[in-house]
Amino acid sequence: MAKPLNIGMIGYGFMGRAHSNGYHRVNDFFDLPYRPVLKAACARDKDKVKAFADTWGYESTETDWRKLIERKDIDAIDICTPNNTHYEIALAAAAAGKMILCEKPLSMNAPEGLKMAEAVEKAKVPNMVWYNYRRVPAVTMAKNLVAEGRLGKIFHYRANFLQDWTISADLPQGGAALWRLDVNAAGSGVSGDLLAHCIDTALWINGGIHNLSAMTETFVKERKHQLTGKMEKVGIDDACTFMCRFDNGSLGLFESTRYARGHKALYTFEVNGEQASVKWDLHDLHRLQYFDHRDEGQLRGWRSIHVTDSDHPYMGKWWVPGLQIGYEHSFVHQVADFIEGLGTGKPAQPDFRNAYETQLVLDAILDSAKSGQWVDIAK
Amino acid sequence: MAKPLNIGMIGYGFMGRAHSNGYHRVNDFFDLPYRPVLKAACARDKDKVKAFADTWGYESTETDWRKLIERKDIDAIDICTPNNTHYEIALAAAAAGKMILCEKPLSMNAPEGLKMAEAVEKAKVPNMVWYNYRRVPAVTMAKNLVAEGRLGKIFHYRANFLQDWTISADLPQGGAALWRLDVNAAGSGVSGDLLAHCIDTALWINGGIHNLSAMTETFVKERKHQLTGKMEKVGIDDACTFMCRFDNGSLGLFESTRYARGHKALYTFEVNGEQASVKWDLHDLHRLQYFDHRDEGQLRGWRSIHVTDSDHPYMGKWWVPGLQIGYEHSFVHQVADFIEGLGTGKPAQPDFRNAYETQLVLDAILDSAKSGQWVDIAK
Amino acid sequence: MAKPLNIGMIGYGFMGRAHSNGYHRVNDFFDLPYRPVLKAACARDKDKVKAFADTWGYESTETDWRKLIERKDIDAIDICTPNNTHYEIALAAAAAGKMILCEKPLSMNAPEGLKMAEAVEKAKVPNMVWYNYRRVPAVTMAKNLVAEGRLGKIFHYRANFLQDWTISADLPQGGAALWRLDVNAAGSGVSGDLLAHCIDTALWINGGIHNLSAMTETFVKERKHQLTGKMEKVGIDDACTFMCRFDNGSLGLFESTRYARGHKALYTFEVNGEQASVKWDLHDLHRLQYFDHRDEGQLRGWRSIHVTDSDHPYMGKWWVPGLQIGYEHSFVHQVADFIEGLGTGKPAQPDFRNAYETQLVLDAILDSAKSGQWVDIAK
Amino acid sequence: MAKPLNIGMIGYGFMGRAHSNGYHRVNDFFDLPYRPVLKAACARDKDKVKAFADTWGYESTETDWRKLIERKDIDAIDICTPNNTHYEIALAAAAAGKMILCEKPLSMNAPEGLKMAEAVEKAKVPNMVWYNYRRVPAVTMAKNLVAEGRLGKIFHYRANFLQDWTISADLPQGGAALWRLDVNAAGSGVSGDLLAHCIDTALWINGGIHNLSAMTETFVKERKHQLTGKMEKVGIDDACTFMCRFDNGSLGLFESTRYARGHKALYTFEVNGEQASVKWDLHDLHRLQYFDHRDEGQLRGWRSIHVTDSDHPYMGKWWVPGLQIGYEHSFVHQVADFIEGLGTGKPAQPDFRNAYETQLVLDAILDSAKSGQWVDIAK
Repeated sequence: MAKPLNIGMIGYGFMGRAHSNGYHRVNDFFDLPYRPVLKAACARDKDKVKAFADTWGYESTETDWRKLIERKDIDAIDICTPNNTHYEIALAAAAAGKMILCEKPLSMNAPEGLKMAEAVEKAKVPNMVWYNYRRVPAVTMAKNLVAEGRLGKIFHYRANFLQDWTISADLPQGGAALWRLDVNAAGSGVSGDLLAHCIDTALWINGGIHNLSAMTETFVKERKHQLTGKMEKVGIDDACTFMCRFDNGSLGLFESTRYARGHKALYTFEVNGEQASVKWDLHDLHRLQYFDHRDEGQLRGWRSIHVTDSDHPYMGKWWVPGLQIGYEHSFVHQVADFIEGLGTGKPAQPDFRNAYETQLVLDAILDSAKSGQWVDIAK
Repeated sequence: MAKPLNIGMIGYGFMGRAHSNGYHRVNDFFDLPYRPVLKAACARDKDKVKAFADTWGYESTETDWRKLIERKDIDAIDICTPNNTHYEIALAAAAAGKMILCEKPLSMNAPEGLKMAEAVEKAKVPNMVWYNYRRVPAVTMAKNLVAEGRLGKIFHYRANFLQDWTISADLPQGGAALWRLDVNAAGSGVSGDLLAHCIDTALWINGGIHNLSAMTETFVKERKHQLTGKMEKVGIDDACTFMCRFDNGSLGLFESTRYARGHKALYTFEVNGEQASVKWDLHDLHRLQYFDHRDEGQLRGWRSIHVTDSDHPYMGKWWVPGLQIGYEHSFVHQVADFIEGLGTGKPAQPDFRNAYETQLVLDAILDSAKSGQWVDIAK
Repeated sequence: MAKPLNIGMIGYGFMGRAHSNGYHRVNDFFDLPYRPVLKAACARDKDKVKAFADTWGYESTETDWRKLIERKDIDAIDICTPNNTHYEIALAAAAAGKMILCEKPLSMNAPEGLKMAEAVEKAKVPNMVWYNYRRVPAVTMAKNLVAEGRLGKIFHYRANFLQDWTISADLPQGGAALWRLDVNAAGSGVSGDLLAHCIDTALWINGGIHNLSAMTETFVKERKHQLTGKMEKVGIDDACTFMCRFDNGSLGLFESTRYARGHKALYTFEVNGEQASVKWDLHDLHRLQYFDHRDEGQLRGWRSIHVTDSDHPYMGKWWVPGLQIGYEHSFVHQVADFIEGLGTGKPAQPDFRNAYETQLVLDAILDSAKSGQWVDIAK
Repeated sequence: MAKPLNIGMIGYGFMGRAHSNGYHRVNDFFDLPYRPVLKAACARDKDKVKAFADTWGYESTETDWRKLIERKDIDAIDICTPNNTHYEIALAAAAAGKMILCEKPLSMNAPEGLKMAEAVEKAKVPNMVWYNYRRVPAVTMAKNLVAEGRLGKIFHYRANFLQDWTISADLPQGGAALWRLDVNAAGSGVSGDLLAHCIDTALWINGGIHNLSAMTETFVKERKHQLTGKMEKVGIDDACTFMCRFDNGSLGLFESTRYARGHKALYTFEVNGEQASVKWDLHDLHRLQYFDHRDEGQLRGWRSIHVTDSDHPYMGKWWVPGLQIGYEHSFVHQVADFIEGLGTGKPAQPDFRNAYETQLVLDAILDSAKSGQWVDIAK
């Protein structure tokens, strides 16, 4: 019988919903040692957090995250607030001995991230960062294929994350809904928001990055700020590209933007190895493209694998072959893996230490974009 | 505040899970007058139904469906048992004044279906049949586009449902998992199991069928029966094709099979109108293909619409543009529509009467396949 | 050194161009015993045939096809005229001892076709019918894969040919450009024009058809006739569907129409076998889709084979891998095969006798559509 | 009546065939003031050039290109030899007053290219470089859409050219077939061979490049040389990536490699503008993907335009809608445009001066890859 795992959620936005759904559903499909209990939701706006709690069935609400952390009946703190608050909350939660599940990116910069990793390690609390795309079954499968050596020596890794929702110059920055456009809340633009996902997946699948050269651009230079009501300089990167060399000798190429008309959330990656290649894209997340040079010559072709069979990662838990799952299931899987890690003592990844590696790359990107120089990744 | 709607579920198989998930999740995303409560699960096997109830959080179990129907604390009966039991259960549930949500196909044949429709109408109980694919957002959108007249006069409707899971002659028939291969439990093969979906969607989108000519085939003539342990004649249709004329003058072409190697659950349909066409397939259920002849000549092309925007059917309830939902969401939508129908008094479709229309077509298919003649659909 | 093969071309329309291009190019790419010489072009309209001859480099022109056939310097007659003239021309050409390359469909009906086949056999003249799609490399490859037994037992064959160019009721029928809409010139509509291709490929790949049931429709009942200037009844089928059983026990499903908005010339076919499946479509004719159940389970998927490698049929003659050829190359290949057949004494297929088999199916289609009965194919 | 244009071809390899085919076919489809006459083919190997001449119908052969250039009966010299010979031949041909059609890349480096451009300008001879992909109808159409302002302000241009044919370390370098792997003959690797195409198209569609940062890699460090028989250091770039800023403020990202397993010749590009986007790939060269934000919201999607209609660039000359052309047609179009330019006096592009711009970018790429610095493009 699953034991309760009491969740204290901070934030009620898009990610608050996605995580809550993960907690809510996981035990219907996965046989686990713990059952998440939606104990308390916390946010500054009393009415909004109450409405959120009602919808999702949180048992109580708080308006001060420090109080939430103090509560004895909370086992785990889930941080779904803007990036500039992760550090303070995480340090307090660790000090209070709470498990922490933190939205990505971990921190505003690498030094902050390092301190956060050190804090949870010192406190010995289970911790995890919500790089959910690792848990899309087709992505997990790509990781497995590479790890099993099926691709052979890797030559190329390329990824991009293309969106188009900020093209209008009339879109304001800042405030509850648009804090991702405000550099003070977000720390960076597409690099921390989108490339962070691409980097996390890349480090996981293809290992460390040695050095990189980056370029950023801010197409819309000024936007009205939601809070001040004034036109203010835009501090985030609207687009960010970098090329790099991985430790294994392969070449990397990464791009993200919110100005690619026609792409809503097109996260794609492709890995080219000596013997085989894989590619994936988020717009059809239930498929994995696979090419194997060892196939009979005349019959070689990219295979479109519909990743819905019971022998595909996670898919034995869901429906029957041919019936796809969606975006939100990646969060269910992450909760499942986190809980399983609690049971086995082998913590689910990425934890804070692992997510700190991504922060190092993100810092190097912004450094390089500023200096125009190749930058080595600190190790 | 949503009032409770107490569900009594009969069956615990694939559909039992899909419906339970629908009940479980609907209020997290939809603002509705009722909240389904998983009151009781019922099945003959005590241990199995207990395990099912534990996983999904049903409050109690029953092993006799008649007892379940008698319970005062049950508002609605969900019938997820093999096809040959729908009739008896539904009549009893109607007599007891319960709402009924019945798996498809409604019945073993049209006369049974008619009596079922008459029974619920006489009892004035809300009733619905789980033709869930209507609620895939892209399918709903196709329906809307046709209904709005955007395609103009319709010339062609074609659909198929292709699977490949029964090709092996070693697969047995009958028993709990494989009752769909046993004609006594299923009534028919792919016609009732797969074509029923295609027909329901077609009637909804394109209106009634006037007449048809059908062909069926049973490729594997004998299979071992799970229950008797003996080789027995296979009574179901392994493949079924029919061509038809719709009441609106358009031509229809339908095919289903479980012997199309490479297709897991490829339900596709396409509608060709004078001005525009749409097509859809279940393997990428979050996309709708649309061609509009009124586009500027040189720029005409099939548009691949990623049906994930907030102005797409149902999608305002879920995530953000670009993030797809999956198969199971169609059941969540159906629960939402059913409950909304309870509130508004405009019953969600298809109800029993509507699903009976599909049974009429199914009967005509088997008649035609047997006689080799064109058969008019009874009206 | 290639010997000359003097061609006498009758007709100058779309097919006249396609064949001329085939003759013109074949020796640049294929090493063959003969080199086609464009000796004479023939058509009733003196100016138009002169212009055609100038463009393509025909050495002379004729306005009476009987005169062309009498000429001693002509080795082979190419019949590119409307269907209702094939019979008379072919019989005269055979009597004159000329080789004959006849556009498809061979004849207005099966009895005519039989006489044509008997005539060329009696005259012992090489003969061929331009079912060019057999020579698209991906189609040839599909044929080879089936012939090698790689698919195993065949369960299903489905094909369609969808167009949309006659939807407008303002389009006239008859005359030089639109004889395909005039039943007196064309004999039938989409069945002879489009389904004939589908049937030819199917018989080639999957063997003979045993019986069938067909449906036809004429959506636009009257069109102005180009020659008379009057509104006249439309005698052709605008759409035609049939289902059938092949001699090998597999089921067939065929559809063609000129009312499928959004499809210009979408000829597709798919073959499902016990072990593997193939599918192809003319809109991306350089690709073959292939699924092999013997692939490792988790890595099964439809392979998109870019049929441009030197070990793919015909492709060793063209460019390098990845560089596609187009529609017209199928005619080049057919000329190459015809000439090679002249050299080896193994005639290229389909010859008249073989194309007569397609006529038998076409007659059965029209019979069945009229009677509403299943019709056996005469053998 | 078309006047003769006497061609002297130097080289008989892959490009010699592609150009010859262009000359051979152009007048069958295009109405032009000149008709290319295959007057002479030239190469050092007497037997091989004779065989080539026989196949393609060249009237004579030469083994010394200087003699070819001296011939009075030659109007135009076509340079299809390795890159390290373009300069010398072009200068001699210009001095002799011959028109010049030169394979790409124009030269080994920009200074050479500049002298070549100056030479043809001084000699006032028509000149052109074979960047054939501009003449793929879908690519021309993309250019037109951008030029008409339909995309609005451009934010992003990305292109890559991925191949996989040199992955094996056993593949030798140098000699007739493999001179592209020998830095002394080719000047560079994928940058000059593949990226040159991407750059030419980009400059044409999106205007000049302001600055760039590049990375190159040579995965296989030593290969046996075909001519010396010895293992020698590989001097070419196996892979090359660069990011850049265009003069119009948009960002560019380019990649090419011969180590992307599964891609034969995947040249793709995509342009993202404020209002619309286009993308294209060489593996399905007859299609253009187009997204228009001005489409009705719920119906927005990428359109797959089958570029085969008579109102698509060049396509009115070929077949009927739905029937695709192939790779080789781009050369036919280039010949047509070159000849048309002769008639109108508006020279076809890219001429030497224009192709020199691409050389400037190529030099900057190699400079940047060596220095690790951003490099401005010389203007």
